[in-house]
Amino acid sequence: MTALIYCPFPNEECAFEIGRELIEEGLVACINVGGGIRSLFKWQDRIDEGSEVAAILKTNAKLIDAAIARLEHLHPYESPAILGWHCDAAGSATQAWLGGLRPAD
Amino acid sequence: MTALIYCPFPNEECAFEIGRELIEEGLVACINVGGGIRSLFKWQDRIDEGSEVAAILKTNAKLIDAAIARLEHLHPYESPAILGWHCDAAGSATQAWLGGLRPAD
Amino acid sequence: MTALIYCPFPNEECAFEIGRELIEEGLVACINVGGGIRSLFKWQDRIDEGSEVAAILKTNAKLIDAAIARLEHLHPYESPAILGWHCDAAGSATQAWLGGLRPAD
Repeated sequence: MTALIYCPFPNEECAFEIGRELIEEGLVACINVGGGIRSLFKWQDRIDEGSEVAAILKTNAKLIDAAIARLEHLHPYESPAILGWHCDAAGSATQAWLGGLRPAD
Repeated sequence: MTALIYCPFPNEECAFEIGRELIEEGLVACINVGGGIRSLFKWQDRIDEGSEVAAILKTNAKLIDAAIARLEHLHPYESPAILGWHCDAAGSATQAWLGGLRPAD
Repeated sequence: MTALIYCPFPNEECAFEIGRELIEEGLVACINVGGGIRSLFKWQDRIDEGSEVAAILKTNAKLIDAAIARLEHLHPYESPAILGWHCDAAGSATQAWLGGLRPAD
């Protein structure tokens, strides 16, 4: 079963750097880094704003927990927002691609 | 359990305004407002185009129905597109953050 | 039950063209085509980069497999990345809209 992870990063370089590490470690197969996003959020009882970039990472349901734990460790924020979900359907090529992921030893 | 909501808005200001209200009401913890999107859609048997901005809102599985109902009420469109889904996995900080949401009385 | 499909395309025109076809065939009701994304991915043991545009397509849980199969057929990539998921919650207007989808004969 395929899976997606959504995670904002402070900037594109940071997203690419961490994405590359997760790809090299065999935890995700791809990261798509989008353009800038404006964020409004409540943290410790204060509403604040920020500028980030949004990223989507592609993995599978078996690896999603390990990928998210590693992403949380690598992310520069103290409390990054990282959310992942299983996908109920995928293209046949996508299923083969993401099903073939093997974490590096 | 964490959850995400996807919803296009007519523009960034509108997304931020409604996002702020949902945050103040304790129904979501964050809104990420992306850059412009071009939309092609069928409505009442006609295919039409439009320019919008896409937004992702972060909440939890207990509040998602109330957050979507309130968002639908606040949204300027007569029939806004609002879709939400439960997330099977999340970073530990994200789980604590979104799990701590408490709707205002 | 409503559903979403995420799929990068080589460019906006291509996304719009294929989106229009899927809408005319009654398999999706809408495509939102975002701005440019930078992609880092592993394919056949090589890590590579690319520039694409991200798109979100709106459909329902009954049609998602047919919509993805058709999208995979129409997509210009040999192995496009196409992932779809059921949505646990949606606005009432969205449920009526996407629930009313009828594939063309």
